[in-house]
Amino acid sequence: MDLDKLRTTLDAIDADIVGLLNRRMELAVRARNLKTAILASDREQSVLSQARQNSIGLLVPEFTESLYKTIMEESRRLQALDLQLVGFQGEHGAHSERASMQLHETAIPIPHTDFSDVFDGVASGVLSLGVVPLENSLGGTVATVEELVMERDLHITSELYLPVQHCLLTLPGQALEDIRIVYSHPQALSQARRWLDKHEIESQPYYDTAGAALMLRRERPTAAGVLAGELCADLYQLDIIAREIADSPVNVTRFVTISREPTANGSKCSIVFYLDNKPGSLSRCLEILSGARINLTRIASRPAPGEPDAVAFLCDLQGSPDQDHVSQAFADLQQHASYFRLLGCYPESDPRPDRSA
Amino acid sequence: MDLDKLRTTLDAIDADIVGLLNRRMELAVRARNLKTAILASDREQSVLSQARQNSIGLLVPEFTESLYKTIMEESRRLQALDLQLVGFQGEHGAHSERASMQLHETAIPIPHTDFSDVFDGVASGVLSLGVVPLENSLGGTVATVEELVMERDLHITSELYLPVQHCLLTLPGQALEDIRIVYSHPQALSQARRWLDKHEIESQPYYDTAGAALMLRRERPTAAGVLAGELCADLYQLDIIAREIADSPVNVTRFVTISREPTANGSKCSIVFYLDNKPGSLSRCLEILSGARINLTRIASRPAPGEPDAVAFLCDLQGSPDQDHVSQAFADLQQHASYFRLLGCYPESDPRPDRSA
Repeated sequence: MDLDKLRTTLDAIDADIVGLLNRRMELAVRARNLKTAILASDREQSVLSQARQNSIGLLVPEFTESLYKTIMEESRRLQALDLQLVGFQGEHGAHSERASMQLHETAIPIPHTDFSDVFDGVASGVLSLGVVPLENSLGGTVATVEELVMERDLHITSELYLPVQHCLLTLPGQALEDIRIVYSHPQALSQARRWLDKHEIESQPYYDTAGAALMLRRERPTAAGVLAGELCADLYQLDIIAREIADSPVNVTRFVTISREPTANGSKCSIVFYLDNKPGSLSRCLEILSGARINLTRIASRPAPGEPDAVAFLCDLQGSPDQDHVSQAFADLQQHASYFRLLGCYPESDPRPDRSA
Repeated sequence: MDLDKLRTTLDAIDADIVGLLNRRMELAVRARNLKTAILASDREQSVLSQARQNSIGLLVPEFTESLYKTIMEESRRLQALDLQLVGFQGEHGAHSERASMQLHETAIPIPHTDFSDVFDGVASGVLSLGVVPLENSLGGTVATVEELVMERDLHITSELYLPVQHCLLTLPGQALEDIRIVYSHPQALSQARRWLDKHEIESQPYYDTAGAALMLRRERPTAAGVLAGELCADLYQLDIIAREIADSPVNVTRFVTISREPTANGSKCSIVFYLDNKPGSLSRCLEILSGARINLTRIASRPAPGEPDAVAFLCDLQGSPDQDHVSQAFADLQQHASYFRLLGCYPESDPRPDRSA
């Protein structure tokens, strides 16, 4: 191994160390919201003692312990700031993180492996909020999220239509001609099929767009790029060598915020109701809404959780329960439905955001 | 995620961070032997600037930079100690590391992915020494190492017969009855087949014994153990719940030290010579040795590198070129061989070490 190669390896190790340090801080800030009677000082002693024990090879235990004292001090400082945490699903740099940052500028986005972790975190109070995708103009509804929205007793408090832009990202200093293979989520790759074929670039599926960017940064495969959002370029220090390479120009994802507390008011409502699975039951309900001149912006049917003979309908509509005609329509719906719940009332967002935003 | 689970995750992250810090120090100490005209202070500035850039999410760039100043300071301190580095193949905790520690108590064992990396490191001066396995009582010769010993212009300077003991290691607090699956190198698993069958434990091949221990520590699979040496128990904080579980009681690996400089003297020699591939050529050479009353302890034939019509013979024998009958026999061998090289002369080690050692 020559000096250049050795330094490249060192740089990759440093990127990993700093990435883990950030995950550590994120978990510590989450832990703060769970701490009850357990003495934090006992826990600190345990962390320091493990730091000593983990010190193998060249690491002097005293050095590692002293480094961890500094890390714990910063961890305590962050815990005391009482930060607002917003959970999203995916790695740092995911489109969901961008939505979290746009919806909640001052909050700290915290990555989660599964959507259910985000809902659990909000329900338990570890997270202040969650931001999850509900539907995409190309991919349709996100079924897992729809189910969680129905099943959990949480509230939708805001929405955002976010244009999804696919960029080709590479390690610094590469040109388009150098790239032979591109890693990304299968959906992202299929949305840029024509562009990739035109440039004779091979597609390689990866579990996540931001995960692919992280892998490129860490493992530095040759002649390789990733398809991901531009946020990943900043986060993983990659170059953007092509923008807007999706075959279809309209690719917008609708994100919603979930929260323990409902918002005070808004101009749009999400509701769910269960109806018996028989002819005419839905049409009667839609007549109630149209009779009250309420505009439906979306309707989706799903199996009703725990009720095999019923069907659940998720509806978004313009209006607020503060308005008499809306609250009356909701009361009428409850007469016909075996179950009715207002999922949230929130400000309506523009479904056709400027693509250059 | 409850507080216990969160703390377990934090502990795993800390173990990863400290493991990476040790790898960082190992690479930094190796880099020292490669540094020439390049200004170290420029490199430090680059490391600090990357630490700032890598600071995403909750990491304040000034905090990360200050932490890295401490890390670089410790790195410089270790570099200045002018440590003797001994390379081995495998992860920390490998049997080769134990051999390195027994042969060279004051040296620092440095893990390498491939045997050729160890030889390259010694040849370039990045490593002071290398310790590699040459043969195992059950598995036979290690062909890759034999080839490297022949091809590279390095010297064998010591040997060690090390008993290989397979232990069953688990996460703390587990009992033998809890374990349903065991991960290890396929060779180790096959050497404990009968014991594993008796206890109805499933075998799961893994690339490396110490690598399996590291995985167990990091990923904490349930009902799982690893088959590895007891050094791994210390390194990865695992419990030893069964010892000496190999089916055959004799399992000894012979390790040798490789170095740029030969030792001054010894009682055992390793030589290599190439002979034409025709009847009688080897027997004439063996007669030279037996005529000089030299005892051969091992002979192995291999394809002669770069000479398709010749065969290479690797021999170990008792004696030293300081002795007239040995040096005369070597001179006679050179008359018959197309190539002859003394690979090393070193103190003979006991081939039947105490198994409890």
